[in-house]
Amino acid sequence: MVLPVLADSVRLAPDGVRILDRRGFPFTREWVRCATVEDVAVAIEEMVTQSSGPYFAALGGMVLAARAASALPPPAARAHLGRAADRLVGTRKTNNHLRKAVRFVLSEVDSAGPVSGAELVAAAEAGARLGDERYRARSRALGTHAAELLPAGATVLTHCWADLYLVELVLAARRAGREPAFVCTETRPYLQGARLTAETLAEMGVDTTVITDGMGAAMLASGEIAALVTAADRVTMDGHVVNKIGTLGLAVAAHAFGVPFHAMAQAPDQAAPTGADVPIEYRDGEEVLSVLGHRVASDRVRGRYPAFDVTPPRFVTTVVTDRGAFAPGRLGEYYAEGEPNQ
Amino acid sequence: MVLPVLADSVRLAPDGVRILDRRGFPFTREWVRCATVEDVAVAIEEMVTQSSGPYFAALGGMVLAARAASALPPPAARAHLGRAADRLVGTRKTNNHLRKAVRFVLSEVDSAGPVSGAELVAAAEAGARLGDERYRARSRALGTHAAELLPAGATVLTHCWADLYLVELVLAARRAGREPAFVCTETRPYLQGARLTAETLAEMGVDTTVITDGMGAAMLASGEIAALVTAADRVTMDGHVVNKIGTLGLAVAAHAFGVPFHAMAQAPDQAAPTGADVPIEYRDGEEVLSVLGHRVASDRVRGRYPAFDVTPPRFVTTVVTDRGAFAPGRLGEYYAEGEPNQ
Repeated sequence: MVLPVLADSVRLAPDGVRILDRRGFPFTREWVRCATVEDVAVAIEEMVTQSSGPYFAALGGMVLAARAASALPPPAARAHLGRAADRLVGTRKTNNHLRKAVRFVLSEVDSAGPVSGAELVAAAEAGARLGDERYRARSRALGTHAAELLPAGATVLTHCWADLYLVELVLAARRAGREPAFVCTETRPYLQGARLTAETLAEMGVDTTVITDGMGAAMLASGEIAALVTAADRVTMDGHVVNKIGTLGLAVAAHAFGVPFHAMAQAPDQAAPTGADVPIEYRDGEEVLSVLGHRVASDRVRGRYPAFDVTPPRFVTTVVTDRGAFAPGRLGEYYAEGEPNQ
Repeated sequence: MVLPVLADSVRLAPDGVRILDRRGFPFTREWVRCATVEDVAVAIEEMVTQSSGPYFAALGGMVLAARAASALPPPAARAHLGRAADRLVGTRKTNNHLRKAVRFVLSEVDSAGPVSGAELVAAAEAGARLGDERYRARSRALGTHAAELLPAGATVLTHCWADLYLVELVLAARRAGREPAFVCTETRPYLQGARLTAETLAEMGVDTTVITDGMGAAMLASGEIAALVTAADRVTMDGHVVNKIGTLGLAVAAHAFGVPFHAMAQAPDQAAPTGADVPIEYRDGEEVLSVLGHRVASDRVRGRYPAFDVTPPRFVTTVVTDRGAFAPGRLGEYYAEGEPNQ
């Protein structure tokens, strides 16, 4: 089976980093070429890519920085890479993945000793490759653990866009001889569900149905849904799941109607001990008042756009990580075997 | 204060019935002129108007039928009116209001004795006027009872479009010196919340915020919402609330976070003893895949569109009727004083 296009939508090329523009996908399939670190940073800031995309873009951006610095002596080259890393990490303040991406490249460069020229570029490329492989391996492990939670012939309700976790979940279920069907919410205002999730599942040959965000509770009450499965932008150590706005309502309804809710995150976040440690990001309320550029609301009102909501642990069945599934009250056990090799 | 346009959006004129086209409102304000009963029936079928609109359109349509039949002898004229009534009632199988509307006109005509000519038209017009006044009086009583449930300075979450009940609720709260603010869900796929509710509240000078359908639970969890208030298309005698898809999810979340849910219906439906007696209407799933004519979902998936959901009584705080507020387990008491004079 061919991988869906979104599973490989940030590519390092000789002339720069090419990023599939998710804002118009699948209606347009335009690749933005980023020739410099600054181009990559702006593409991330302008939401050309999102979810796992900025991680891969940052890996590629660090290679571009190494190429640009290759003529400099080692200390100046290393300083250049440090500035590039700061620029990339600063593009999205709440995305922990960016920090991990630049660290992969900087670690590889630093362990190569004071380098410049082709050696510097080779070290950066090796770091980027390692970061790419490591992220994919962790996503694969997570997807495999998530697939084990689904009964044969399950119909799964998902929300927003779970990116590689979703792709790996489908692949793992298939390896185990199971073929889950999916119902996905459209996920207003950006419609990641109707656009990214639906198209990707269809590319993979999965039976896919789109519903509006208000239909989830009725689906969960109908008895047709075996599990609610979403990604989590962050999971706090006490089991709060921070994810795309709308997750909370689905989780509460799943709980009310006896459907398990599995939230997927590579690891719980030690920097966030409790739900209170995660501030909710508000975006421009105007986004709510239009759809893909078309006004849909009265001109005389304001919109409001909390980007995420926080689901308390009593509405979460399991948190699925790359180290297996944990009850939300037992996430400390994730770290029993130490920090993940990220 | 001027009434909002949607509170008077079906008008009987000398040359026919004029109906404001709600499908494009508020972006367009086009009035469809219906010269005949058939025109009115088609306008109802094509969703030019909805909610309470078809009721008022059917009243007007019966007057058009009387005008068209006025040259006939009384028995033929009465038969003509009967056929017109059947045509109008048949336009929307699940709308009980249509049956009530034609009955107002037919009763008035029948009590006038065998009539034709100007007498027939006068009787039909009197029936239509009575039906109009009665519906508005019941909505006003309902709105007054609903307003009594809201604390001063309340912010109310509402879903879809509660039509005259909403207008009367705001007017009653205002008479009582209270000025509720509203948060309304956009209500995909037809966006009645973003278009009809938001515009009408803004016309009335109410502080109004629009959110997407997925944001309701987070709003209810935030502590900012004093009550969830919606209309109900139907309330069963055992307290199930049938309303626009999305109501169930909001009601479950309101219950989880301790926010009362008040459902507004003129009366519980004696024809529906239990929730199981109400079949759910499915509309064309393609509606889910576009927004006001613009495609928003992958071309490779299907949509699904249950038009209503059913909220069990355990998630309903009160059912507000024209005879006051009732707990969902005590709706039989509504009929203790007999049938309403409808």
